[in-house]
Parts: sequence; C-alpha cells; structure tokens
Amino acid sequence: MDEVEKSKIIFQPSGRRGEVKKGLTIIEASRELGVDIETLCGGKKVCGKCKVRIEEGFFEKYGIASSRSHVSDWQEEEEKFINTEQRGAGYRLGCCARVEGDILIFVPEESRAGKQVVSKAARDIHIEWDPAVNYYYVELSEPTIQEPTGDLERISEELNRKYGLKNLDIDYLTLKRLSNRLREGKWKVTVAIWMDREIIQVLPGKIKDYYGMAIDVGTTTVAAYLCNIATMEVLDTVSMMNPQCKYGEDVMSRITYHMMHQDGLAKMSADIIEGLNSLVTQACNATHPPNEKEKNQKRDNKKRREIQQDKQYLCLNPSDIIDMTIVGNTAMHHILLKLNPEYMGIAPFPPAVHKSMDIKARDLEIRINESAYVHILPNEAGFVGADNVGVLIAEEPYKKDEMQLIIDIGTNGELVIGNKDKLISSSCATGPALEGAQLSFGMRAAPGAIERIKIDPDSHEVDYKVIGRDTWRSYSKSEEMQTKGICGSGILDLFAELYRSGVILKCGRFNTNQKNSRFRKNPDNNQPEFVIAWANETTIGKDIVITQKDIRQIQLAKGALYCGCKLMMRRMGIDKVDRVKIAGAFGTHIDREKALIMGLFPDCEIDKIVSIGNAAGDGARAALLNREKREEANWVSRNVEYIELTVEKDFQQQFMEAMQIPHMKDRFPHLKGIVPDEILNQ
Amino acid sequence: MDEVEKSKIIFQPSGRRGEVKKGLTIIEASRELGVDIETLCGGKKVCGKCKVRIEEGFFEKYGIASSRSHVSDWQEEEEKFINTEQRGAGYRLGCCARVEGDILIFVPEESRAGKQVVSKAARDIHIEWDPAVNYYYVELSEPTIQEPTGDLERISEELNRKYGLKNLDIDYLTLKRLSNRLREGKWKVTVAIWMDREIIQVLPGKIKDYYGMAIDVGTTTVAAYLCNIATMEVLDTVSMMNPQCKYGEDVMSRITYHMMHQDGLAKMSADIIEGLNSLVTQACNATHPPNEKEKNQKRDNKKRREIQQDKQYLCLNPSDIIDMTIVGNTAMHHILLKLNPEYMGIAPFPPAVHKSMDIKARDLEIRINESAYVHILPNEAGFVGADNVGVLIAEEPYKKDEMQLIIDIGTNGELVIGNKDKLISSSCATGPALEGAQLSFGMRAAPGAIERIKIDPDSHEVDYKVIGRDTWRSYSKSEEMQTKGICGSGILDLFAELYRSGVILKCGRFNTNQKNSRFRKNPDNNQPEFVIAWANETTIGKDIVITQKDIRQIQLAKGALYCGCKLMMRRMGIDKVDRVKIAGAFGTHIDREKALIMGLFPDCEIDKIVSIGNAAGDGARAALLNREKREEANWVSRNVEYIELTVEKDFQQQFMEAMQIPHMKDRFPHLKGIVPDEILNQ
Repeated sequence: MDEVEKSKIIFQPSGRRGEVKKGLTIIEASRELGVDIETLCGGKKVCGKCKVRIEEGFFEKYGIASSRSHVSDWQEEEEKFINTEQRGAGYRLGCCARVEGDILIFVPEESRAGKQVVSKAARDIHIEWDPAVNYYYVELSEPTIQEPTGDLERISEELNRKYGLKNLDIDYLTLKRLSNRLREGKWKVTVAIWMDREIIQVLPGKIKDYYGMAIDVGTTTVAAYLCNIATMEVLDTVSMMNPQCKYGEDVMSRITYHMMHQDGLAKMSADIIEGLNSLVTQACNATHPPNEKEKNQKRDNKKRREIQQDKQYLCLNPSDIIDMTIVGNTAMHHILLKLNPEYMGIAPFPPAVHKSMDIKARDLEIRINESAYVHILPNEAGFVGADNVGVLIAEEPYKKDEMQLIIDIGTNGELVIGNKDKLISSSCATGPALEGAQLSFGMRAAPGAIERIKIDPDSHEVDYKVIGRDTWRSYSKSEEMQTKGICGSGILDLFAELYRSGVILKCGRFNTNQKNSRFRKNPDNNQPEFVIAWANETTIGKDIVITQKDIRQIQLAKGALYCGCKLMMRRMGIDKVDRVKIAGAFGTHIDREKALIMGLFPDCEIDKIVSIGNAAGDGARAALLNREKREEANWVSRNVEYIELTVEKDFQQQFMEAMQIPHMKDRFPHLKGIVPDEILNQ
Repeated sequence: MDEVEKSKIIFQPSGRRGEVKKGLTIIEASRELGVDIETLCGGKKVCGKCKVRIEEGFFEKYGIASSRSHVSDWQEEEEKFINTEQRGAGYRLGCCARVEGDILIFVPEESRAGKQVVSKAARDIHIEWDPAVNYYYVELSEPTIQEPTGDLERISEELNRKYGLKNLDIDYLTLKRLSNRLREGKWKVTVAIWMDREIIQVLPGKIKDYYGMAIDVGTTTVAAYLCNIATMEVLDTVSMMNPQCKYGEDVMSRITYHMMHQDGLAKMSADIIEGLNSLVTQACNATHPPNEKEKNQKRDNKKRREIQQDKQYLCLNPSDIIDMTIVGNTAMHHILLKLNPEYMGIAPFPPAVHKSMDIKARDLEIRINESAYVHILPNEAGFVGADNVGVLIAEEPYKKDEMQLIIDIGTNGELVIGNKDKLISSSCATGPALEGAQLSFGMRAAPGAIERIKIDPDSHEVDYKVIGRDTWRSYSKSEEMQTKGICGSGILDLFAELYRSGVILKCGRFNTNQKNSRFRKNPDNNQPEFVIAWANETTIGKDIVITQKDIRQIQLAKGALYCGCKLMMRRMGIDKVDRVKIAGAFGTHIDREKALIMGLFPDCEIDKIVSIGNAAGDGARAALLNREKREEANWVSRNVEYIELTVEKDFQQQFMEAMQIPHMKDRFPHLKGIVPDEILNQ
C-alpha cells in the first residue's frame, strides 16, 4: 500500500483550497495550490518575508490551548522575524512550518507576492536590416515526364538560379509539408530560409510580412517584443513576472533550489518555457479582433484573408513566429536550457557554454513555428550573461572613443567599462537591497510601493508618493495612501534624503542628535529606526520604518557597486569616465543627482548620465533583425575581459571605503544653501 | 451521446478475440486484433487472398437458414474468387465482408500471412574506414579563477588544439549533459563528433568501440546490420517482415492505402518506425548475457563493466547506437519519413526529395542515441530509390570499364546499366508475379513453399522441394511434404521446366497435345491447368495447380524485365552486356541457366551472371562506415540518367516480343539431347 497521508489546506483571503501531502512546508503547499507567497530568499529561512498566520489547526504544543497541533514545531530561525506576541497569535514562517494536519492559513497582505508593474518598452535604436530569416518568392515549372525532378531539388535549383542560394538544407518538418505546399500554391511559393542555409518554411503564394520575437528573460521580469521582421516594426511589447520567482527571488536561491530538489531544474525550466509560450500566445492574441471568441484557432486561409482585409488585424498564430532571440543572465540562460547551473554557483563559476546557441524551438518545447530556431545569445562569464551581451550590442561601446561605464543593476550588478580599444566587465554582489528585498519594509515595484521621498531638512517631516497613485502624501488623506512598503527607486531616494536632511551621517549611522517624532527606538529590540509612513497611511496596519540594519544593507549594495566601478577604472588606468549608462528598470526611475549624492557610482557630468532602458531586450531585438549582430555578440562575449573583483588587490579595503557616503562639499557646490552646512561639510 | 456500436469477434484458429466497431471490414478487424491475414492487394478486392469462413453469425440474408446475418451483403467482386459451394459454406473475402454483429471467423491456412524466411546476411565487401561519426579522446585542465572558461569552450579548444577540429556545434541534448559528464570523467572524456561538425556525445573516460546500424527497408523485408564502427565488424544481422505488409503487399497498394485513409501515412510510418525500433532492441538484446532477465535496463557503469569483462557480452543499449543509415525504395523512403507519397504514384512521378537527408533520430522517433543523426540515402527517381543507390555504391559500376547490367527484382524491378562512362537506370513494372503474388497458389518464401521443381520431359511427372524440408517429393511420403504454395524462386524454376519439358509452348500457351494426368481442364471454369502438387501432399487440402492465367502473369513480369533491359541496351548503344548482377533474395535463389532459358534478361556468359545478395544493405553499411560513400551516393543519384521506359519508341512492340520465350537452339547448343528436339527447334 503506498497511500500518502494528506491534509486539507485553505488559504485566506484567496480562498484557495486543496489536499496536500503531510510534511510539506506551507510555502510548498502554497505553490501546489497556486497561492503566491513572497519568498525572497527562496525558502532559506533568512528573509522573513513569508510570514503567515495559522487560523485553525494552530495549537502551541507546549501551550495550554491543546495537546496537539496541525503544524510542525517552532524553529529557532523564526525568532528573528516573529516576536512573542505574534507567535502567540499564530504567526509562523511559511518556509519553517510544515503541514501535519488540516489547517486554515491567513496570508497577510505584506506577505503576498503582488503583481509587479513592469515597464519595458522597446527603445528606438538604430538596427541595420539583415535578419537571420529571409523570405524568398519563387515561381517553379511543374514536373513533366521529361523533367521529373523531385520537389526539393526543383525549389533548390530555382532558389540558386534566382537568388544565388546554394547547398540549402531543409528542416525535416518543412520537408514533410513541402509537396503539398507546392501544389497548394500552384508552384508559386514563398520560402523562409534561415541563415541562407536551411529552408524552414514553404508557404503558398507571395508573402511579404513575417514575424519574430525578441525576449529578455530577467530574474524578476520577462519582456518580449513581437516584431515584423520584414519592416522591423515592433508590433507589441508584452511582459510578465518570471514564473520562477516562486522558487526564490534571486539567482543564487534558484541555483540552490535546483541543488536541493531533484526535479528543481526541470520544474524551473518548464515554468519559464511555459511563461514564454504564454507571452507568445498573448502577443498573437492581441493581433486578433477583440470580439473574436476563439483566438488562435486554426482558420482556413480564406477566412483569415477576409479578417486581414480589415488591415487592422494581422490574426497571427504562434506558428507565424518564424524566429526568436533570447537574452538572460547566465543563470536564467542555464535554467531555461536545462543546463546544470550548480557549477556556475561555486568558484571559479564556469558556465556550461559561452557561445550563442541555435536550438530548434521544438527541442525547447517553445511553441512557435515548428521548424523555427531559437537563437540564445552568448554568455560572457558565470555572472555576466547574455543579457549583458545584449546591452553591449545595443550600445556598442566598442565602437566609440569615449570611455563608457555601463551599469545594469538587477538582483546582481553587471558592470562594463571601456571603449573601442578595450572592454572589461565584472559583476558585483549588490544583493537585492537596491531593489527593496531584505529590508524590513522592502518590496517590489508594485502598487502601494513608495517610489519617491522628500525629507524636510529642518522638521524631518517626510513626504512621499506611491506607485499607482499620483498624489503625494502631503496632498492626500492618510487613508488614501494605501502604502505597503518601499521599492527600489524609493530606496535610493530615501537614502539620499536621509543623508541630505541629516537623519543619517556620512558613515551611515543615525544622527542621534536629531529630535523629531519619527526617529525613535524600537520598543521590542531597542534599536533606532526612522518612520517613513505612519500605520494609518498603510494597508498593513503598522508603521513603515527604516532601521539601522536596513541602512547597512543599502550601504553594502551601493558599496559593492561603487567599489566595483572604482576597481575596474583602476584596471583600465583611468580616474574618470566620459559617460555613465544605466540599464534596466532601475535606470529609468533613478534620480541622477541622488545617485551621485549617495555615491552609487563614480562621479560623472550629470547630463552624461543616461538611462538606456531595457538595453538587454534591445540587444535581443537587434540580433533578431540583424544576423551580423549575432556574430558581433559572439565576438564581444569573448573579447570583453571578465574581472573577478573579489580577488583584486585590496578589495576589502576598497569595499569598506565605498560604503561611506562621499564628501559632498567639493562635488556639489550648487547644493550650498539647500543642504545644511553641517551635512555639506561633514 | 457518442456511443459507438461494437461487435464481439473471435478469430480461429488463433483464438484472438475482442470488440470492434461495427462497419469495419473483417481485414480491418483482424488488424485491430493483431491477426495476420494475407492481403496482397491491400484490400482492393482483386487478389482474393483474404478468404475467410464465417463460422457463427453467418446466415445468407436471402437464404433459408435465417432472415438476418451478422456480416454485410455479398459483393460482386467476391464471385471471382469464391464459388457457389464455398459461398454456401460461409466463405467471404475479408476485404469485402463487414462486421454487422458478433461473429466467429475461421482463417484458412492459405489465407494466413506466414512468417517469412529471410536471409539477408552481410557480404564481405571492401569499405575504407572513414565513418561519419568519430570518437576523440581529450584530457582537459580544470577551470580556475584565472581561467574560468566555460565547459563547451574548454572542450572545443582542446579538440582544436589536439585534432584540428574547428567551429564545432553541439547538439542541444548533448550540451544538457556536458557539464556533468566532464566532471564524472574528471575532465578526461571521449567526444563523439558527427561529420567533424557537431558534438553529439560526451562520455567519461576513454572509449574506443562505438556502434551504428545500417538498415535496408524493403517493401517486404527489413534487414538491419549492427556494426562496430571502430572496427567495421558486423556484429549481428537482424531482420523482420515490413510491418506495413498488412496495408498491402506492393508499393502501389501502400500508396493507395495512404490516399484512401486520412491517417494512412501516419499509421504506415508509425509501423515501420516501431519496426526499426524493435530491430534495434533485438540487436542490442543479443549482446546481453542470455540469462539476464532485465534486458536493456539502465545499469550503473560499474555493473556494466563487470559484465563486459566477460568480453563476450557488449551489453549494448539502444542509446549506444550513435549512427544509422537507411536505404529503401522511394515509396518506403517517403512513407518512413511521412512525406506524401501520392505524387510519386502518378505521372510524372516526382519524389518529394532526391538528395540524402540527415535527420535527428529523435525527430523520427527512432530510439537510438538521443543526439544521433539518421542518414537516409538519396533517391534517383520516383521508382528508383535509395535502395538502388545503395546497390550502386556497393557495386561501383561507375568505376569499371566492363558494361554491367544490375537487376534488383523485388515487387518492382530496378535496372541499371553502364560503366565508368555512363550509367542509366529505369524501373519496370514486373509486378509481384515473380515473387509468387497474384498467382493461384503463389505465396511468399515461407515454410511449405515450393522453391525447386523438375518436370520429366517424357512422363511430365513433377518432382519438387519446399522451403523448410530438405527432402524432395520423390523421396518423401505424400503427407510429409506439407506443401502450401509456390514462392518466387519456385516460379522461375516452374516456368523454365514447363517449357523445357514441353508442357507449354514458346508463346506460353499449354501444349494441348500432351497426355498425362496432371494436365487437365478445371471442372469449374473449363480452363486448362497443370497440377504441381496433389491435394494429399498439401496442408490446404487441394491440388496446387498452375493455370494459363498464371503463366500469362509470369510472362508479363518476365516480359517487362526483358524488354526493360533491351530498351536500355538500345539507349546505351550496345547489344551485349559484360556482366549481369542480380541483387536481392531473388538473386540468391535463382538458377542462372533457367533464367536464361525463360529469357528473364538478355543473354550473357553464364559465369558472368552473379548474385550480389542484399547489395542495397551493403550500400547502407558502406555509407555508415565511410562518409565519402555518402557523397558518392548523392553524386551517383544525380548522375544516373533515369529513363521512363513506357514512353520509349515502340515500347509496346518490344514488350509483346519480350513475353515470348526466346529460341533455345542457338542459345543453348549444349542442351541438345537433354531437351526434346521439338522444343529446342520451336
């Protein structure tokens, strides 16, 4: 008998319910039942984000309420995040508490993984038209007794005669359809050829427009661009959260998830592939008339032409997508391709492969045209992946004289510095603090997240605005704010404002001389903290504060980044860069002056600091529309010198110094009068 | 409600039973229940081989027995094959009678598709060693912080340094395993590379032996050679009947089956693929110790090495097969690859593709190594396929001075004539008569089939021998013979003997002057016939005879072949060939003198007539072990001039003449005294 003992679980407030195997953690149970609970650390019991309240089935084993409990014993790790009072109320960490009987679980709002606001529009960068897939139109003579040459040879000879294409292969699945397609088209057909090498599609008649997708698989966000390859037009941008987020917020927790679960890699890979397929479907559905109920259904060609005559609707199906390019950091790259990521998680971090790969979409189970290839851009190193290569081929610093510093801050910081003579890259462990993780009230860029902050230097009063609401706090009623936490761009603002207003000192410690109602000691642990938002402005029913520990986390992150830039500049033999480019969503929200104030990266003329948006995605798009860019990507991935910062001379010393906030006086003379003198002169 | 009405069916004597959908023919029902009934014409109601007896559930609708019947109405086509008496006993054609209720069906022995005796051993032909897949051994340095190059680049650089291999691709599935394999092998690995282009396997440690299979997919028989590619040794030859035989005996009936059934191509393709997979498994199992119960199970490497130390057992698994080559006629080629075969069934017969194809085994669902390619040799024309190309690269007539005629007689005759200066090929519609089909008592080369015959010129007494019994009729008791019919080689013997002994005349008609008990008029239709075996020598309970119609069929076949050769010789401008080579099982059983007597092919010195066995399979093996042979095959397939015989000048005239038996007097002076004068001088 292999009967498995199961328990009934209900999650509130979503109401999701079902039976799960006894012994699962509440996080594991939540995944099975499709409930999203925040797990920034991926279940390693260190982030404390997955707090839940056991409503029924909770009885402290050694308490008076009952002699039995439906959850496993309290764990030491939970003490850091749950105080005695909460513990009494049934709070547990979802990653620690295991199901031992039927339970009703309440997931507090702060623990719910919200739907992130994603903005990853395509930029208008210059790309030469030279796609990997080309469409060729041919008119063939019919076979006769005198000339009974086979179908493939007939078409190949004409492609050679008319376009000079020689030695063409044909994809097996295209070959299967070839004979019928030729006759459907009455021997007039359009042929899709990949890299002038392989026939991957034969369509009856003359076709001009054809379609591809460029995809950026980020650790947190996946963005996809649907392009008309013939016209280079971006028809649509679609995006989603990386469905792997449920296995852990950052790269390392996903690698850990793989190492701790036999089917971890398979599950994570299947999730992202499924995600890509849903993006493809979503983008295709958007080309159909809105009142068409059955989307993406096979239509006969006549019906399809009728709808298309409306011109507004392309009526694309996934099988119309004939090419795809993908960028992503090395871990996302490996997990997507089911390559064992564990070796790139430990020194010396070698990836399984650097160079770009062309893999049949069907081998990856990506549901676009069955004969299409997926082109995955190359990796530079274990911690500088194809996404960074995408940034490089979009920005082309190797074609410029000026010395550029390109920063891509995600959960990991990727840095490139150089010009046409030399390029070096490295990664720095900024950690997720700059994105809001690991902080007491940090969260992703979702509605309710504080994104801008001002602190009055005199009164230390705080004004702020949240995502999803245009009106600032000072113009709103408290209950209108619906504040939930602080996201990445808010944190940068906060840090700069805390310093500029004198709440914290140059070294990062709280100024204990300040007198205002917001600065206080936490009654539980007696540690100093500063209140950003009062409980009545929030949906979580408590004050949103920043603690000394939070500030240290931000300092560690900004120190890693600053120190990385400095060490690379030293290697490059320069003490100043001509231009700073900031990629990613972080770059689009960043206040350049505040970034300079806090010393996020080395000084640069303020108008030479530019945001380049989702440059990684732009690189993927460039590679979709220009095959030379694929070559260029392979070249650059092997010609950027990767530097492992942690083994650089005096790394520790540099890092410690970089955690300080730099002197402001000389750097920002224009701030005199705006910032208190004692701060400016610190 | 989509309930389908079903009926219970039992087949005797096999006892197979089950429920089938009402409305199926008995042949369709037999397929569903796995009962093999002969259907030479593929259900077209013209061969009459699928006679069955309805035992229960048979009541003539208009008869006295009952007012209802469980089978469909009698059809006109059945009258040709079933006489009134048989009809009364419940005989029906399986392709005509449809299931309308529960029935018990008896399949007479003559209608059972027997297991054919197949002999397709590999010949010892000379092949240069230059396989498409090579194994390379490399020892790599481990990654370090100073040199953290990725795994693929590490291995590629060493393969370039040590073996000069550049620009290597890697199969995606091989890449997935790469990192683990390198570490299992402690950075010492053997790499399988296909065509110096693509890494398709990485194995820990140093491996020398590796394996491939060469396969000949015949219309009737499939033969496979398991080879050690490293040593060129043929380890095993395995063969089976083509499982598609149940859809029709010859190429045209299979094409018809496809055209008449929507899923016909998919079913026939799936059957042959499944057949190939079972041959692979069979050949691999034969390398395991006989008492090993769990064959082909995954073993850990240690256990496997232990077994292998015995040296006698290789313990191969299908995944050890790293390369495969396939030949087959154009129809078998198309059906295997699921290419629409219908266009090559109608003039001008263009195939979907001529050139050789390299297709991933996984795309074909052939279960050998998951990254291996299958190489399918090229086709010459719609009716001269990759099997003929196999014959050519095995025999290399294009490298010789002497003028060779190469004949491959299967269900279709394929002819090549030429030397190093020129090669022409054609096909001739011999039909299946020479293989025993379409004759009253024709059958495949299976136990009980008459394969040798002698007829005494004076008494016209017949002596014969059957497959599976060494003793001739004249030395056996009647009941020992267990005769069932006449197979291909027996037919050739019979025809020559009928003529030499004076039973038939030069024009093919029975000599009505003969007086013996064997020559008689059939009491049913008053047509002349000659008894080969008396009922008491058979298992079918009736006299085995040859009729005037049978003789016409043989004449048509031999006429087509002879006329084809003659027309080709005319095109070539020659009146004599230096050598005749006969390929296929037919060639190995043929009596050269009798073939000359009956005028099967143009005259040639008798010791220059040679059997070349399964030369098509030899060609497949050559292509497996030598990649140049693949190039040669593509070259020859496009440089043999294909001739459509039926449009040649005076084809009809030539064909009519060729049906005659040629004058013997001048051709066989040595037969004087052996053959009666009146025959010799006819």
